[in-house]
Amino acid sequence: MSPSPCAGDRVIGKTSDLTISVFCLAINRLSLSLKSKHDMTYCLGIITNDGLVMAADSRTNAGVDYISTYQKLFDFSHPGERVLLLCSAGNLSVTQGVVSELEKDLKVQEDTNLHNITSMYEVARYIGGKLRKIQEYDEVWLKKDGIEAQCSLLLGGQIQGQNPELFLIYSQGNFIHATSDTPFLQIGETKYGKPILDRTLSYNTNLESAAKCALLSIDSTMKSNISVGPPINLIMYEKDSLAIKHRLRLRLGDPYLAKIRQLWEESLKQAFDCIPHINWQHREDDSPENILID
Amino acid sequence: MSPSPCAGDRVIGKTSDLTISVFCLAINRLSLSLKSKHDMTYCLGIITNDGLVMAADSRTNAGVDYISTYQKLFDFSHPGERVLLLCSAGNLSVTQGVVSELEKDLKVQEDTNLHNITSMYEVARYIGGKLRKIQEYDEVWLKKDGIEAQCSLLLGGQIQGQNPELFLIYSQGNFIHATSDTPFLQIGETKYGKPILDRTLSYNTNLESAAKCALLSIDSTMKSNISVGPPINLIMYEKDSLAIKHRLRLRLGDPYLAKIRQLWEESLKQAFDCIPHINWQHREDDSPENILID
Repeated sequence: MSPSPCAGDRVIGKTSDLTISVFCLAINRLSLSLKSKHDMTYCLGIITNDGLVMAADSRTNAGVDYISTYQKLFDFSHPGERVLLLCSAGNLSVTQGVVSELEKDLKVQEDTNLHNITSMYEVARYIGGKLRKIQEYDEVWLKKDGIEAQCSLLLGGQIQGQNPELFLIYSQGNFIHATSDTPFLQIGETKYGKPILDRTLSYNTNLESAAKCALLSIDSTMKSNISVGPPINLIMYEKDSLAIKHRLRLRLGDPYLAKIRQLWEESLKQAFDCIPHINWQHREDDSPENILID
Repeated sequence: MSPSPCAGDRVIGKTSDLTISVFCLAINRLSLSLKSKHDMTYCLGIITNDGLVMAADSRTNAGVDYISTYQKLFDFSHPGERVLLLCSAGNLSVTQGVVSELEKDLKVQEDTNLHNITSMYEVARYIGGKLRKIQEYDEVWLKKDGIEAQCSLLLGGQIQGQNPELFLIYSQGNFIHATSDTPFLQIGETKYGKPILDRTLSYNTNLESAAKCALLSIDSTMKSNISVGPPINLIMYEKDSLAIKHRLRLRLGDPYLAKIRQLWEESLKQAFDCIPHINWQHREDDSPENILID
């Protein structure tokens, strides 16, 4: 199944007209609300001293017999004035509903829309409100058939004159933001891709390395879990540039993706071979002191 | 809270008398059935051409304010005739109940016990039966208060004249066994530690490397998730030796564990640095063909 026209339109930052948008919203609800029971994906946001990285896979499934591709990374930027990137995971009908609402407010130039809100905090609050609205609209009907309306969003961006920020908006519409202590936030199928972030990433990591780390984190997840799959979408945003200059889309079987995976596997195997065999003669000393290791 | 005497006794293969065992069973039920709501751990079994590796952490928690240490790797071997290793994850009162039952049958020399069953398949069936028995006994009372009785077990071993085998026994008492296609089985908090297994392990991996891989898999999980923690218990069993000659216990802060972790982090970082920066000029070609990459 190919992506719906609405998803595609939103992704490239173009706006279809309101009629189409509302039509798509209706179609999405009709066709997807009953199917997105096991919707899973993996999205990742990283904030560093030098900017932001946002990455997402594109797999949506409602059980193993209904696997399809939907882009989960949306660009709502207004180049030169603000950069706004959104990633979504969870019930597809809800997250598509949120994106449609955001787009509609932009199109009809609502008093409050993504291009006139004055801080990233307020943007997160506004998107959280849209999430609540869609859930209120659908939740009773979904719950009636035991379908989860849960979803979550990552919001990264920068408004002119302010610092870049990265938020995780929960299914309840509340949110947290990343700090220099924990410079990444994940949604969806987060566990497989976390070890590499924990081991290689800090707030001071240079932006190119952070982007590489994001790609390897998603690739590790794809390797271990079929609910996460290509195309991978990746954006690297340089602080204060107020424009997206680096973006990448890697489809299944892309030779570049295959090459990176092969290189990473070889490097990992070499790293593994560097570790000496276990010293079975090692005896636990009797010291009761437990030294915490990070 | 220190481990109960029953857990300790079982671990080192000694048998306390029946009275103590039954007493412990009662105490465990009393003290833990209401607490083991979020019990989590990570255990791993690997089977290769040359033998078996079994590994487990020791952390038990019933929420972040009740974290304690219980060994999850049990040795029921009869050296020279059979090797039987068991790892447990899930509701601690249920898994301790199963272990107590197995021990009791050995002690009173039941017609069917772990030392006289004639195949690994029958051993798995027998242990699955014990699991069902304990769950039947407790389940209604646990469910009444919304407590999960779910748990799972890994069984690895060899009986003289037969091949080594590795089983995963589900909470329902049914089970699967590992094959050369998928030479490892995991229970508990399995996701963080899976990427390294997927990337470095096969049925033909030599046994020392498989043991190292198990240690790194558990260490990766500990690094990323606080519900998994030391001491780590690790056993390597060489096919046809019918005796456990290699075992390791690594407590929190053990200098050897810290050294391995540091080495692995350095090697991983080197591997990461070997990967070139992302080629942002890469353009997706228009080929509709999707080459599956493994």
